[in-house]
Amino acid sequence: MARKSRKAIIIQAAAELFAEKGFRATTVRDIAEVAGILSGSLYAHIATKEDLYLEIVRRAAQDFTSAVAPIVEGADSPEIKLERMIAAHLSVIDRSRAWARVYMDDDNQLSDRTRGRARQLRRAYERLWDKVLQDGMSSGVFSVDDESLARLFILSALNGVIRWYRPGGRLASTDVAQAFSPLVLRVLGVSTP
Amino acid sequence: MARKSRKAIIIQAAAELFAEKGFRATTVRDIAEVAGILSGSLYAHIATKEDLYLEIVRRAAQDFTSAVAPIVEGADSPEIKLERMIAAHLSVIDRSRAWARVYMDDDNQLSDRTRGRARQLRRAYERLWDKVLQDGMSSGVFSVDDESLARLFILSALNGVIRWYRPGGRLASTDVAQAFSPLVLRVLGVSTP
Repeated sequence: MARKSRKAIIIQAAAELFAEKGFRATTVRDIAEVAGILSGSLYAHIATKEDLYLEIVRRAAQDFTSAVAPIVEGADSPEIKLERMIAAHLSVIDRSRAWARVYMDDDNQLSDRTRGRARQLRRAYERLWDKVLQDGMSSGVFSVDDESLARLFILSALNGVIRWYRPGGRLASTDVAQAFSPLVLRVLGVSTP
Repeated sequence: MARKSRKAIIIQAAAELFAEKGFRATTVRDIAEVAGILSGSLYAHIATKEDLYLEIVRRAAQDFTSAVAPIVEGADSPEIKLERMIAAHLSVIDRSRAWARVYMDDDNQLSDRTRGRARQLRRAYERLWDKVLQDGMSSGVFSVDDESLARLFILSALNGVIRWYRPGGRLASTDVAQAFSPLVLRVLGVSTP
């Protein structure tokens, strides 16, 4: 129990440092310092910095998936599902900014193996979006030429908030979701007022 | 002349390193090494690493602006202008990937002064997009509730290519522009087939 919560503290510290300074510029010593433990003891909990990175991406992917999968598996229409997925996705970014930033960055300082594994984790989450896009295409409510490109377009537009959204600014995160929902539906060929 | 081209080599080296390793993890020694000069001589050409960063953002902003401003000032309809701006913007990203990546990253390792200056440079470019969005709104061809949010949505969707586009993959950069143009027009309420 104590061991588990120590590990959680280390991962949280790593997420904040990777998000702020970048993977490469963050040292194991930095992580230990922010986590409030000795560098030496860190290795009782993690093997390498790349493992820590993957653990962050894995947990962020789980966080996105837990928020979005129940909507995808639900009984709503594709349009309603999409609106709810947008709100859920933006809400995860809003409450876990550091984790989301690490998740999104395809850091080219990582080994090919780690990058490949991180991509698999992101792809598994993206497939939830593909599913709803395909359902909407099949039922004729959505209409796009290339579903993969449409999904890339939409997720890039949503993930862009990490660069420009300032908590405490003129908009709450829910305002952004409300403003972006009709724009996403429009991308998919749904007429909105 | 020789001095100027030496400086250009240094800035190119810095752009590649910042894009690959991040601003913080790049040392002046790294830049000198890639540029093929002695660290000491670097300071004859630049004052600080932050100055180099700003110079890269300034040149990238100029590159985007030179490609897009003539379209904005031209006589085409807002829809045609927008299609041409999308192609121009994606083409700049495609031919100057490292520069574009540094330009887009709002690196929180920089001093407030440098970040503020970089934001001004980006804002000046973004105003070109705002102008065409506003022209389209005034003439009734575009329809959105919040033009600033629509512009953020659109530019994030376009800039996302830097994360997923692989040169030499199944799509040429011009294919992406062609696929994204109708999606952007849809965001603005223009019906496309």
